[in-house]
Amino acid sequence: MTTLLKGIAASPGIAIARVFHLAAERFVPVQQAISDTAAEVERFRSAVALSRDEVEAIRASAEARLGADKAEIFEGHLMILEDPDLIEAVEQKIADEAICAEFALHEIAQSFIELLQSMSDELLRGRAVDIEDVSGRIMSHLRGVPHRELAGMTEECIIVARDLTPSDTAQLNLDYVRGFVTEVGSRTSHSAIMARSLEIPAIVGAGAAVHDIPADAFIVMDANQGVVLIAPTEEELANYKDMKQKDDHRRVELSKLKDLPSLSKDGKRVELAANIGKLEDIQRAIDNGAEGIGLFRTEFLYMGRSSLPTEEEQFTSYKYALEKMNPKPVVIRTLDIGGDKELPYMELPKESNPFLGQRALRLCLDRQDLFRTQLRALLRASRYGNLKIMFPMIAVLEELLEAKRLLEEEKQKLIAEGVQLAEHIEIGMMVEIPAAAVAADLFAPEVDFFSIGTNDLIQYTMAADRMNETVSYLYQPWHPSLLRLIRFVLQAAEKEGKWVGMCGEMAGDSTAIPLLLGLGLHEFSMSAGSILQARELISTLDQSSWSGHANQALTMRSTDEITQFVERTRNGVIQHD
Amino acid sequence: MTTLLKGIAASPGIAIARVFHLAAERFVPVQQAISDTAAEVERFRSAVALSRDEVEAIRASAEARLGADKAEIFEGHLMILEDPDLIEAVEQKIADEAICAEFALHEIAQSFIELLQSMSDELLRGRAVDIEDVSGRIMSHLRGVPHRELAGMTEECIIVARDLTPSDTAQLNLDYVRGFVTEVGSRTSHSAIMARSLEIPAIVGAGAAVHDIPADAFIVMDANQGVVLIAPTEEELANYKDMKQKDDHRRVELSKLKDLPSLSKDGKRVELAANIGKLEDIQRAIDNGAEGIGLFRTEFLYMGRSSLPTEEEQFTSYKYALEKMNPKPVVIRTLDIGGDKELPYMELPKESNPFLGQRALRLCLDRQDLFRTQLRALLRASRYGNLKIMFPMIAVLEELLEAKRLLEEEKQKLIAEGVQLAEHIEIGMMVEIPAAAVAADLFAPEVDFFSIGTNDLIQYTMAADRMNETVSYLYQPWHPSLLRLIRFVLQAAEKEGKWVGMCGEMAGDSTAIPLLLGLGLHEFSMSAGSILQARELISTLDQSSWSGHANQALTMRSTDEITQFVERTRNGVIQHD
Repeated sequence: MTTLLKGIAASPGIAIARVFHLAAERFVPVQQAISDTAAEVERFRSAVALSRDEVEAIRASAEARLGADKAEIFEGHLMILEDPDLIEAVEQKIADEAICAEFALHEIAQSFIELLQSMSDELLRGRAVDIEDVSGRIMSHLRGVPHRELAGMTEECIIVARDLTPSDTAQLNLDYVRGFVTEVGSRTSHSAIMARSLEIPAIVGAGAAVHDIPADAFIVMDANQGVVLIAPTEEELANYKDMKQKDDHRRVELSKLKDLPSLSKDGKRVELAANIGKLEDIQRAIDNGAEGIGLFRTEFLYMGRSSLPTEEEQFTSYKYALEKMNPKPVVIRTLDIGGDKELPYMELPKESNPFLGQRALRLCLDRQDLFRTQLRALLRASRYGNLKIMFPMIAVLEELLEAKRLLEEEKQKLIAEGVQLAEHIEIGMMVEIPAAAVAADLFAPEVDFFSIGTNDLIQYTMAADRMNETVSYLYQPWHPSLLRLIRFVLQAAEKEGKWVGMCGEMAGDSTAIPLLLGLGLHEFSMSAGSILQARELISTLDQSSWSGHANQALTMRSTDEITQFVERTRNGVIQHD
Repeated sequence: MTTLLKGIAASPGIAIARVFHLAAERFVPVQQAISDTAAEVERFRSAVALSRDEVEAIRASAEARLGADKAEIFEGHLMILEDPDLIEAVEQKIADEAICAEFALHEIAQSFIELLQSMSDELLRGRAVDIEDVSGRIMSHLRGVPHRELAGMTEECIIVARDLTPSDTAQLNLDYVRGFVTEVGSRTSHSAIMARSLEIPAIVGAGAAVHDIPADAFIVMDANQGVVLIAPTEEELANYKDMKQKDDHRRVELSKLKDLPSLSKDGKRVELAANIGKLEDIQRAIDNGAEGIGLFRTEFLYMGRSSLPTEEEQFTSYKYALEKMNPKPVVIRTLDIGGDKELPYMELPKESNPFLGQRALRLCLDRQDLFRTQLRALLRASRYGNLKIMFPMIAVLEELLEAKRLLEEEKQKLIAEGVQLAEHIEIGMMVEIPAAAVAADLFAPEVDFFSIGTNDLIQYTMAADRMNETVSYLYQPWHPSLLRLIRFVLQAAEKEGKWVGMCGEMAGDSTAIPLLLGLGLHEFSMSAGSILQARELISTLDQSSWSGHANQALTMRSTDEITQFVERTRNGVIQHD
């Protein structure tokens, strides 16, 4: 009989393929005595050599497919394969103790891994993962079994794992991975955001039962509904294949909207932009018909390294993005570190409630050296495209004024140095703290635009950590209080003739879009993969009718009432969904 | 020359006395060989006997002064003084190793302390503090030096410490302690709240320099201004003695307001109530002219014990409070545990952002057994006075309706059991989450009253942990966004004819009171020690004028602007402050 698993539909689509369990089974060798130690050392060396060839090949393919920076991780693996502290130490141990290569390798590698894991330095702890990966590969060659790996997969599969880390996703081979199913996570966890950004179907938070899916089982995942079918019947399989075909067909249809403007049925123009977190995302944004970048997160420039990025490094990245999108706008958000995002080399103090701590602009105003470097890089890049600068985590007007003052100071310095800058750069702020939404009218005269960051705004308005599953019932994007805060911001901006965008998850949600359109939102910034669908949806909506519906929704008492009202109203207006 | 230290004025008043450094200097004995071990054991025994007499005396005095439950800590100390694992082990060690009693005691006590400190059980870790205290006392007798202790002090003093813990404050001898000066802390830290509740002048967050105040120095602390004068000149001393006399005189004048109603200059009646955290506070509330209890925190019933309080235990406490205040109202808040408040025996999961986690009512709705027990105890106590039940940490209407449903269920069960209940019990909710403030109109038809909890409301509205010093600049009670949220709540309540109180720190603040009166707040609940001053202040304010001033303040851009406006307006209206 078909077994059903339910999870959270995190990235839409249907996939049908074999499972690939990411949790690598741990092989623990037993100690065996060896008489011919010279032959055993030789056997170890050839396993190392095979591993080296393999990593070389993966590195080359990753570089071609994902770019040089994604391939860097494998350079690290090659270095480990040549590290005398590891490789020669194993050979020595085999010779000295007359034991089998498997056991010697296990012992030496484990001692390194344990040592590194005990370090407080995150880079070193990260190195433990690499050593585990490399020694596992050598072990596979010693044992003559294939080393399962994300990058090296050779057939279509659906990945099943507890969760996917950023380094896992860097190694994904998009030619073969058809979807993810994870045990933990929410719509806003890393793996969910990544799946939407890669446009791969994903179901997250499906519970511990995912690990019980038989290895190599052929499964169906319907990430439109959040359902996994294990051992589907012939009939189910046929149905889902049919649905998948329609789904694929729809994707082709959607792609025809790529170069069209985003217009409501009654001709109201809005802008559909993409949220990006690294330079490679820009191409995907363009391919999906983004009319701009509504949120360029700059954290990637600061992460995965051992020191702060220089002004020059940042300038190069900003210039690349601006030139690539030109003349379309690129809203670059200044550094948003702290909270759940740490930089190992910055030694930020541990906080009891990091989401309520010294995050983002708060940190930048305290660490002005770091902030000024970023501002200079942004200013210098400004003449290569349509730059808009956005400050995150502003609660009070004084913070905005101070950020603007520092920007102006750096601008004057650059002008004095003879550097050429864009004539006008729009300055905006995120609205993600309730204080800023409630008092948006005080900020409106001081900015060119607002961008509502719903993920944080919901979390603070509800006082509910969006990563904490016990309070996830309070993550209610269309709760009356949220809609009201959004309306405050729109009304305050309208009075001053400023535009308002939204760059949280809500901007790409098909239940929210009609209401947001009705409330008068100007720019919707979302995962690139959601843009075409949003454009299609908007083309079926009458902005002026939804303005009335939104006012009606604002009088409702609960999320349920509003959601049902939107569904009913949409179904009344358009025949298919 | 006079040295000046600056800190946060946490509890008003002036004190002039010697310092008493709470940081007990650690004495580490050296090992000395002893020939007559029998005599050494005898010396140890008499030090233990002297300690026992001393603790007995302190226990008796604490019981008379503070009540039986505060004296309990000393019962624990007596048990330690009779514990063979400690006492006999030391005697054995002296005899076996022919070493001095000091060293033997130090070794044995330290091994216990280290063991207990390594435990994850908080009760056991707390025991380590007791053993440290008791062994320090025995050590003092062995050395023939006085054991410095809070409860045993014999002259007037100002306590200087890093911080004061709840167990420190339980031991304070109010006959001698004239004030606190602490290195760390904010206006809302435990020691600050405690100082206001005990009506003792306190300056907190004065920095590490407090430890450099010479031992036994004679100092002046002006906790109205947040200033400490070390080695004051004769002239300064004379000035401060004069100021203190005026201050004391003022207190006598204030006490005349004790039994008067709280009326504004133009005759608007408001209610000034007290926040309490334990049963002993009720007498202090009455002594200070409280017209009710605006916030009865029930956490004390659950803390400092090893299992949940029974329905009977809770009933007894609620009944006591209601009878004591009758016919004045007592607003009892249901359990607010989680966040920064833990119960060792409940094993709450660790959360990354506890202030945004499963706190208070969220936990109670999940742990209905615990919640129903409290509701039953409250219902049963209702007929003994004027009970109002208040639910904390509500974000969405569904939570309120569910809490009311459970209350109604327990009510019907009790009625079926033949238990007599009050005819009407008012039901209210805290407004401390932005969502509840923004959507107060949705809640108003479902409650009898609101109570605005400003400490949390500010923290969530600003997205700034109120315990985190790096973001303390965002703790702005009269920021425009806060005033607007307060007005939303008042307007929503007015429409439904419901009353609104405030039970955060802001309700007792002399800068906030004029605005709150102007906005139309009905009940101000504060530390008992602030009530008379608030009553005096309100009697000088014209409610209808302040209604206009408050509207003006709501259009201002920043906390600074509003604060200055209030100061200016108050000074224009009343001649003295």
